[in-house]
Amino acid sequence: MAMIITATDFGFEGPYLGQMKAVLLREAPGVPVLDLIADLPAFEVRAAAHLLAAAIHDLPQDAVVLGVVDPGVGTERGACVVQADGRWFVGPDNGLFDVLAARADRLAWWNLDWRPERLSNSFHGRDLFAPVAARIARGEPVPGTPVDPAGRLDPAAGADWPAVVYADRFGNLMTGLRAAFVPREAVVRAGGVELHYARTFGAVPVGAAFWYENALGLVELAVHRGSARARLGLAVGDPVEVLPEQASR
Amino acid sequence: MAMIITATDFGFEGPYLGQMKAVLLREAPGVPVLDLIADLPAFEVRAAAHLLAAAIHDLPQDAVVLGVVDPGVGTERGACVVQADGRWFVGPDNGLFDVLAARADRLAWWNLDWRPERLSNSFHGRDLFAPVAARIARGEPVPGTPVDPAGRLDPAAGADWPAVVYADRFGNLMTGLRAAFVPREAVVRAGGVELHYARTFGAVPVGAAFWYENALGLVELAVHRGSARARLGLAVGDPVEVLPEQASR
Amino acid sequence: MAMIITATDFGFEGPYLGQMKAVLLREAPGVPVLDLIADLPAFEVRAAAHLLAAAIHDLPQDAVVLGVVDPGVGTERGACVVQADGRWFVGPDNGLFDVLAARADRLAWWNLDWRPERLSNSFHGRDLFAPVAARIARGEPVPGTPVDPAGRLDPAAGADWPAVVYADRFGNLMTGLRAAFVPREAVVRAGGVELHYARTFGAVPVGAAFWYENALGLVELAVHRGSARARLGLAVGDPVEVLPEQASR
Repeated sequence: MAMIITATDFGFEGPYLGQMKAVLLREAPGVPVLDLIADLPAFEVRAAAHLLAAAIHDLPQDAVVLGVVDPGVGTERGACVVQADGRWFVGPDNGLFDVLAARADRLAWWNLDWRPERLSNSFHGRDLFAPVAARIARGEPVPGTPVDPAGRLDPAAGADWPAVVYADRFGNLMTGLRAAFVPREAVVRAGGVELHYARTFGAVPVGAAFWYENALGLVELAVHRGSARARLGLAVGDPVEVLPEQASR
Repeated sequence: MAMIITATDFGFEGPYLGQMKAVLLREAPGVPVLDLIADLPAFEVRAAAHLLAAAIHDLPQDAVVLGVVDPGVGTERGACVVQADGRWFVGPDNGLFDVLAARADRLAWWNLDWRPERLSNSFHGRDLFAPVAARIARGEPVPGTPVDPAGRLDPAAGADWPAVVYADRFGNLMTGLRAAFVPREAVVRAGGVELHYARTFGAVPVGAAFWYENALGLVELAVHRGSARARLGLAVGDPVEVLPEQASR
Repeated sequence: MAMIITATDFGFEGPYLGQMKAVLLREAPGVPVLDLIADLPAFEVRAAAHLLAAAIHDLPQDAVVLGVVDPGVGTERGACVVQADGRWFVGPDNGLFDVLAARADRLAWWNLDWRPERLSNSFHGRDLFAPVAARIARGEPVPGTPVDPAGRLDPAAGADWPAVVYADRFGNLMTGLRAAFVPREAVVRAGGVELHYARTFGAVPVGAAFWYENALGLVELAVHRGSARARLGLAVGDPVEVLPEQASR
């Protein structure tokens, strides 16, 4: 059965996520709604796109993802529906879905030109994207115009991005690099520090900085029982560098 | 189908919201439970009442709202059930529902005099209000005594309140003013600053302060990619002023 | 009907809780999932164990609790399934379930030796414990080896612990002491301050420090409209002392 999954930058604070989910429950009764992430980087759409592409692997193949990082809400930015390897994505047409779309084997794309009767200037997640996600979850046709993804999508959008894409509350730094493509002997240079690979936190001394393959499959910079964010002085969007040859210690 | 909606000041931290929802799932199996908001202003019941009245518009007509901002828990404050324009509200009788009740076309009111066998001194949300909300969601009669709302409710409680009622995590400030009653040419004075209307964030330069109609229909004070809270130096409960004549720039 | 309940130290931030719940929804469709708590003390397994033992009382008797505080993930720590007074617990075998197990009347214990095809080094909550919790919720046998709890569990683990086990966002400090075993005339000494019993917040003046029986049944240190954490200067794991004789005021 279908499932609707939210991936937003709203935070859990305030009535925003709740109001959007109230629309989902009303328009698609009986369909489970899961909050995948509510703190996608606000204003940093590229970082959010890389994080989202890595975070969807465990989702069911028929999931409908309501993805909202929308700094341009109320301006003339477009809206879209994307189907990538079976899963649906509904949200602003601002690049949020470009990374996962460029990596998909099967891809379809619609301009979302339907508009609801009441559309606020600042909350299209509730007023536009949630009703459309509910329709798709109910099995109805996409209320939009099919377009050729080839004319819409830069094929290079799927390439890995050597930059910080997320900082968790412990100060671990996820990057836009997929660990499967980074040799274990590679050194990652970030914030002036050279980090070597370790399997996980317990494999290094307390206080040591290292990189590892995190549970999303991304290269993550970490300090055992410490904060890589504080140690390296990096924020979302800041660059990192992979040194292909092993540095001398 | 009925739906139970939580609106509290518990935060998502700790076991509080989870314990309350465990009661709902046990007592009303199969009824969806939605968290509308978990950071209603603690201790600021009037602000919470204005925010709640604005936040319920998208809720289904038969929703049962479990509303808990309860600084007087464990003292002699009463408990109530309110039905306003079809929707149910269960919680402390401390003014939290007065704004939405005073604005309702159809209104019924009960003193909630039922008490559970086990009633903690500090968590009536779990022990008293959740079981009652579950009963109502199951279609059972209200376990309370009907009272005449006219003798209970100050009719002026529904009036707009020129004050800050919520600060979101970006520092935007919601007020208790409904934007439908504020002319677009009006100037809002707050924290010594005069703010003019703009349609949305993208309509003003980065760093500019303005007011706009937010997605709840309230006048909200904002700074494009900045914090109105920091700029204006205001907190929940602080007054704002609407200048009916357009100020000279 | 069964219900799966999460109790973790993940926080609501990031994709962690969402990814784990996606597995639950996929592997146990139709089974309600409730987040009981997401901020169990990270790295402080003993404190988490006392808090969890106190927080489960309202859970249905057939609940499946997915409990994850797992600082040793990726090392050689074991994994276990525990059934205590009917309820199931799935998670790391690091002491997290020892307090509730030692207090149970009926107890069964399994070493969880099943491993999934894909097991990340850092997220056994998603890859190992969630699939097992889903199996148990579906009524399938535990994929593990039964062991005698007597050889596994220190019977003293169930004893109360005179220490701070949780600080909430208001600065109230929960302890590992069950209030039912502490006489009301007892004085609690913590951070150099002697606290007397009060029924609840409203029973003492604003600014007064006191102890009370919280809604989990634990001794909690509080300051009326203030922060006991700031007043007493204590953190999770710090000791408190019960003075059996009433101190002179």
